[in-house]
Amino acid sequence: MKKDLYLGVDTGGTGVKFVVTDSGGSVITSGEVPTDPASITVSMRRLATAVGGALGGEPDFPDLAGLGMACAGIVNSVTGQLGRSPNLPGWQGRNLTGDIGRVFRDVPVTVANDVNGALYGEFRQGAGRDCRNLVMIALGTGVGGGVIIDGKLVVGTHFGAGEIGHMSLDRDGPPCTCGSRGCLEAWAGSTGLLRRAREAATQGTANDELARLVARRGESLNTLDLAGLAAGGDVAATEIFAEAGRRLGQAIGNIVNLLDPDRVIVGGGVAQAGDLILKPCREIVPGLILAEEARNVPVVIAELGPLAAAVGAACLAREMEISR
Amino acid sequence: MKKDLYLGVDTGGTGVKFVVTDSGGSVITSGEVPTDPASITVSMRRLATAVGGALGGEPDFPDLAGLGMACAGIVNSVTGQLGRSPNLPGWQGRNLTGDIGRVFRDVPVTVANDVNGALYGEFRQGAGRDCRNLVMIALGTGVGGGVIIDGKLVVGTHFGAGEIGHMSLDRDGPPCTCGSRGCLEAWAGSTGLLRRAREAATQGTANDELARLVARRGESLNTLDLAGLAAGGDVAATEIFAEAGRRLGQAIGNIVNLLDPDRVIVGGGVAQAGDLILKPCREIVPGLILAEEARNVPVVIAELGPLAAAVGAACLAREMEISR
Repeated sequence: MKKDLYLGVDTGGTGVKFVVTDSGGSVITSGEVPTDPASITVSMRRLATAVGGALGGEPDFPDLAGLGMACAGIVNSVTGQLGRSPNLPGWQGRNLTGDIGRVFRDVPVTVANDVNGALYGEFRQGAGRDCRNLVMIALGTGVGGGVIIDGKLVVGTHFGAGEIGHMSLDRDGPPCTCGSRGCLEAWAGSTGLLRRAREAATQGTANDELARLVARRGESLNTLDLAGLAAGGDVAATEIFAEAGRRLGQAIGNIVNLLDPDRVIVGGGVAQAGDLILKPCREIVPGLILAEEARNVPVVIAELGPLAAAVGAACLAREMEISR
Repeated sequence: MKKDLYLGVDTGGTGVKFVVTDSGGSVITSGEVPTDPASITVSMRRLATAVGGALGGEPDFPDLAGLGMACAGIVNSVTGQLGRSPNLPGWQGRNLTGDIGRVFRDVPVTVANDVNGALYGEFRQGAGRDCRNLVMIALGTGVGGGVIIDGKLVVGTHFGAGEIGHMSLDRDGPPCTCGSRGCLEAWAGSTGLLRRAREAATQGTANDELARLVARRGESLNTLDLAGLAAGGDVAATEIFAEAGRRLGQAIGNIVNLLDPDRVIVGGGVAQAGDLILKPCREIVPGLILAEEARNVPVVIAELGPLAAAVGAACLAREMEISR
């Protein structure tokens, strides 16, 4: 049997998503099983069953040339160790490579952080596929990110790189979940964005529509609700996205002044607000960049959607295999 | 004659500094000739005469295995072209490699930006010599910087990387020479720092000593005057350095969250204020960094002083030679 397939896996606190790709990185099949946050072995057995079903049920996965695992948390790509990972308490401190290898015997395993997985997916198969120097900012509940320099993921000395969400943009800004104030995440992550919407509603600076939406949705208020209101012309909701966009632009200006990449990709659920965030962002970026040649850096939306990290993990597995 | 010497050159608006190093990077001799800002050829002839004298006067520099030139401005290390360089108007747009080669025949030429030269010098021979991932921030009249990832200089797609001085730390901060507000440079470059001292003096928030110093020194006020006052216990002068240090810390926090380097080196004339800046800086850095493992990043003073860029240029020439 020819080993020419790659399994890419993206593990979060609730689901283990997977894709099987061919050697060119194209997705052949995909699926998801529930994560067991207490046990990596239970989760991997569920994954193996689902992948086995998708590939025709042969034992020991004779087609798989490699497995890439993107995982939430601080991932040591060299040792395979998972560091802090708040949503996977039972996985913390485990050696991912070893634990996965006990279920997927004989398949070479590569591990990475989940945002780096998504960045690598966009780099190989998505919005950054013609780049050498690339930055991604993922606007989710929090804000994460990743950096590729000269075609390689920058993981940092302690595997702590890419924490773009905690770039301090104003010491006196709104509080952030990390304990600081004025981090990018406090404006552009959904937690921060919704907090600002609730404050605008209660502080009476919002018009009636926003206040009514906040009251009606209560704890289930989400950024899509808010984007719908803004798309309908609501001034207060629009301004909350615009400020998120301007803060995103300030962060991008800072990153481009530091690294001068080919392109910046914006992904994550909040990015679905599209031009509500991206237009004000793109308007301020060029004026913040010193080197004239670097000013017109394209700021683009991610292309791969929720499977980005799984696709990227499959690509990482393939590249590791190739470079062996 | 054995080719085992390297000539490292650092060209600024007023002087062309040079070092001759052995193949291990140790400085054998050094010197300086005046820059002709209108003509690279005139400047290079002056340099050749001085270097020829230092090396014993043989024509065509038979001992030189390579020449590295660090130059103020945007330097395309691939083509050798010098982009914008406000202090070298007659050099702008010239091909440095070609022009230098016409004077230093048969000597291979490598070119880099001056701050990248200084960073590379510290990386090979100074405060970063045991690092793989390194960031330098040079606090001069303005604030520049550079990044090394995995042992390689990060120059950026358009050779515009390293502009750390224009990291926006507060949209409503003091004005910066670049036209923005609240850039790191507006607090921690000497122009910004002295502007803040003059403002403190005239706005009556300073005590008598600072006001008297500003009045006495007028246009010739410099950061050493101010540091002297602060070292003597003056509260207003101390606070100006402390705020520069806290803003430097905010910038370092942002960079470490993004890149997680081994170490951050602070250089440039303003860094001579030492603990007046570094103590408040080091106090706030750990609290700004998300990844626990990255929090104790050492923030250290540059070791090589004014010859750093020339030493780094010599090292770059050597490495280019080796990797050919």
